[in-house]
Amino acid sequence: MSKNNCLLREKVALAKAASLKLAQTASSIKNSALRSASEAILKHKEELLDANRNDMVAAKAQMGQGKLAEALVNRLKLDDIKVMEISKMVSNVADLEDPVGRIVYSTKMDEGLDLYKITVPFGLIVTVFEARPDALPQIASLCIKSGNSVILKGGSEATESNRAIFRVLEETLTDKGLPKGCLQLVEGREAVGSLLKMDNMVDLVIPRGSNEFVKFIQDNTRIPVLGHSSGICHIFVDRNADLSKAVCICTDARVQYPAACNSMKILLVDAAGAERLLLPIATNLVEGGVRIRGCSRVMTMLKRNKIAAEPADESDWSTEYLELTLPIKIVEGIDDAIEHINRYGSRHTDSIITEDKEAARRFISNVDSSTVIHNASTRFSDGYRYGLGAEVGISTNKVHARGPVGLEGLVTTKYVLLGSGQKVGDYVGKNAKPFLHGKVDTDLSRRL
Amino acid sequence: MSKNNCLLREKVALAKAASLKLAQTASSIKNSALRSASEAILKHKEELLDANRNDMVAAKAQMGQGKLAEALVNRLKLDDIKVMEISKMVSNVADLEDPVGRIVYSTKMDEGLDLYKITVPFGLIVTVFEARPDALPQIASLCIKSGNSVILKGGSEATESNRAIFRVLEETLTDKGLPKGCLQLVEGREAVGSLLKMDNMVDLVIPRGSNEFVKFIQDNTRIPVLGHSSGICHIFVDRNADLSKAVCICTDARVQYPAACNSMKILLVDAAGAERLLLPIATNLVEGGVRIRGCSRVMTMLKRNKIAAEPADESDWSTEYLELTLPIKIVEGIDDAIEHINRYGSRHTDSIITEDKEAARRFISNVDSSTVIHNASTRFSDGYRYGLGAEVGISTNKVHARGPVGLEGLVTTKYVLLGSGQKVGDYVGKNAKPFLHGKVDTDLSRRL
Repeated sequence: MSKNNCLLREKVALAKAASLKLAQTASSIKNSALRSASEAILKHKEELLDANRNDMVAAKAQMGQGKLAEALVNRLKLDDIKVMEISKMVSNVADLEDPVGRIVYSTKMDEGLDLYKITVPFGLIVTVFEARPDALPQIASLCIKSGNSVILKGGSEATESNRAIFRVLEETLTDKGLPKGCLQLVEGREAVGSLLKMDNMVDLVIPRGSNEFVKFIQDNTRIPVLGHSSGICHIFVDRNADLSKAVCICTDARVQYPAACNSMKILLVDAAGAERLLLPIATNLVEGGVRIRGCSRVMTMLKRNKIAAEPADESDWSTEYLELTLPIKIVEGIDDAIEHINRYGSRHTDSIITEDKEAARRFISNVDSSTVIHNASTRFSDGYRYGLGAEVGISTNKVHARGPVGLEGLVTTKYVLLGSGQKVGDYVGKNAKPFLHGKVDTDLSRRL
Repeated sequence: MSKNNCLLREKVALAKAASLKLAQTASSIKNSALRSASEAILKHKEELLDANRNDMVAAKAQMGQGKLAEALVNRLKLDDIKVMEISKMVSNVADLEDPVGRIVYSTKMDEGLDLYKITVPFGLIVTVFEARPDALPQIASLCIKSGNSVILKGGSEATESNRAIFRVLEETLTDKGLPKGCLQLVEGREAVGSLLKMDNMVDLVIPRGSNEFVKFIQDNTRIPVLGHSSGICHIFVDRNADLSKAVCICTDARVQYPAACNSMKILLVDAAGAERLLLPIATNLVEGGVRIRGCSRVMTMLKRNKIAAEPADESDWSTEYLELTLPIKIVEGIDDAIEHINRYGSRHTDSIITEDKEAARRFISNVDSSTVIHNASTRFSDGYRYGLGAEVGISTNKVHARGPVGLEGLVTTKYVLLGSGQKVGDYVGKNAKPFLHGKVDTDLSRRL
C-alpha cells in the first residue's frame, strides 16, 4: 500500500470513530460549535482572502492558456461579501432544527415491549464537490449538524481556499467540543478512487460536479450515492397557457442562470396553441440571447416570421445545454408532452404552463420527476427556495431522498425495541399472545 | 433478441404503462379489488390445491434424489388452512392505510406559490422470491396497494402453485378495475438477468432468498435494490443481565426458528458476568439441541462443567448458521461487544440483555444496525410484529428503507410546486423578494 493510501485509511478510520461520538453529541453543542465557526470565519477573513488570491492567480494563468472557463474562474473568487455570506450560512445551519433523534414511528407491541423508529445519522459521508469556496463550509456544516463525520474533497482549483477554510472550521469545531477527526480534508483524484472502494467504512457518497463525473461515481462504487447526473428539465406550454406567464417563465427558466441544473433545457409547445404562443415566447428568448434549435414544425413557423433558428436533431432532446441554447419541439397535446418528458428527461424538474387545471393535474400525476411544477419557473427547484435551509444537492434517486436534499436527507432511521424479557415463542403458534400495536409513551427518557 | 426476451420486454412495457394508471387509482378501488381477490382465492381453493399437489410431487422426487432439503419441501405445501391464511392476508393489506398521496412536507413559498412533498409509488417493481406459495400473494398485494406495478418471479419449485395463484389474482384485480398489465408473472433464471439490465424501466428490485442470491443481485444491477444479504444477529449478555431473561431470550432467539434471518447467530457474553451467566444459558441451549462452538475461554468453562462444545475459529464470527449451531464468545465488557458487532455483524438486528439502563443506552446508540433491542429476542424484528401489517422484506440499506419494510418503503416522494406565473428572477439579486416559507393549505383539492 502506498504512503498516501495509508494516510487516507488513517483519516477514514479517524472519521469513522468520530462519527460514533458525533451521533450522540447534543444539539446544543453542535449548534454552539457551528456558531463559533461562523464567527471564526469572519475573524480569519484576511487569511481566507490571501489563500483565495493564490488560487485566483493560478486559475487566471490556466484561463490564459485556455484550460479553464471564465465562468469557473469567477465562481472561484472570494471577497468580503462572500466571506460574510459564508459565515451567515454556517450560522443559519446552526439555527435549523436538529434532524437526529426524531421518532418517526412507534408502537406498543405489548406491555413492556415498545418499538421506536428513530432518525439517526448515516455515519461517515464522503463528499466530492466543485471548485467554489462556499461549497466546503456549506457541506461541512450540514453534515456536522446532522451528526455525520465527513470527508471533504474539493475541486483542485480551490485547493488553497479549501485548506484555509477547512483549517478554520476544523480547529474551531473540535475546540468547541466536537469529536476530533469528524472533519477530514483530502486532495487528489486518486483519493476519490480509493474512497469509493471503502464500502465497509463509508456510508454515503455525495458527488457534485459535471454529469460525467457523477455518472462515473455512480458506476464505480457499491456505496449508496446521493446525487443526479444531469438536469434535462422541460417546460411544456399547454394549449390553454396564459401567454404572458408563458413568455415570462420560459425566459426566466432558460436565461436567468443558464448553467444551473434546474434551468429549462428543452421547451415543448402544444401544437394546438403554437400559432398563438410560439412566436412571442421565441421572440423574447432570442432577445434574451438564446440560440433556438427547432423541430421541423418550429423551423417552419419561425422562418415564416424571420426569427433565427437552427434545425434540431434527435440528439438535442437528450442534451443538457448549459449555455443559452434551447431546443424547441411542437408536440401533439399533453400526452405527447408527458411521453416525451418521461422518455428523454432526467427526472429532475419539469413544469407545465396552463390555465387548465385538469391538464395540470394530469401532468403532475404522470410526469415521473423529482419536482413537477405548475405555472412557475423550473429554477425554483432548490433547497434554499424550498425552505430546507440549505441543500447538499438535488437527488434524482427514488430511493431515500428525492429532489432538493436538506438535513432530512442526511439521516436514516433505526428501529429501537425496548423489552422486558420477551421471547417470540409466546407470540406464535397455538395460544399465541396477540400484539397490541397500541399507543406508546414517546418520551424515551422516561422509558430508558 | 430471442423470442423469450421479446416476450419479457413486452411484459415489462405493459407493466410500466399500467403503473402510471395504477399510481392514480383511488384507494377505494384498490381496496375493493384486493378484497375481491381475497374472496376469489377461497373460491378457487381446489384449483390452487391441485396445482400445489403437482409441485409437491416434483419436489418430493427431488428430495428423494437429495436435491432438495426437507424444510424447503415442507414450506412449499399448501393446505386448507394455508389457503385461508393467504386469503386473510390479502384482505388485511386492503385494510391498511394507503401510503400514497400523503403530504410529508409543505410550505407557502410566496402568495400563489405553494410547495408540497407528496408520497408517490416507485412505478415498476421487480420481485424475486423463494419457493413458498404465500410469498406471491403477499408481495403482489403490497405492491398493488402501494400503487406499483410488479413483475413476480418465484422459486421454480413453486411454479404450478404460483401460476394458479397468479391467475386468480390477475383476473380478479383487473376485472375489478385495476389497469391491465399491472401484475406480471415471469419464469426462469434468464428472465432475472435480463430484468436487472432494464434500469431505464424498472424502479426497484426486491430480492428474497439465499444470501448469495441477494448479493448477486446487488452486484449486478444499477437498479436500486431493497433487501439484505445476511442476518448475522448477535445477543450480548451484559454483566448486569437478569439471568432468567438471558436464558429465556437466548434459547428463543436461537431455537424457535433457526433458519430465520432474525434468529441469533452469535452469542457474546460479558467476561465480568460469565461465571454467573454462561453455564445456565449454555445448558438451556444444549437442551434445546444447540451445538455450541466456543472461543477458548468459553471452551475452558464449558469443559470444566462437562458441557459439550467444539472450538470456534475466526470464520465462525462471520458465519450465518441457519441450523442449531451457535458460536459463543466471551468479550471484555460492552465496548468490546459493540466493536465486535459493528465489525462482524451484518447490521440486521442485535440485542443486549441487561438491567443496567446506561449500558442499554450505550448499546442502542453505538450498534449500527437496522434494529437494536433491549431485553427481548432478536426474533421480534419482523414487519408483522412491528405493526406494519405485512412486510416485503427486511432492509439493511441505510438509504430510503431500513429494517422491516412495509407499505411505507414501497413509496417515494415527489415535490409538487403550484405557482401562478412566478419567475426566479424576482427572488434573486438586489431587491429580491423574500420567500415566506409559511403555512399552506394542505387540502390539495382546493388548490388545484
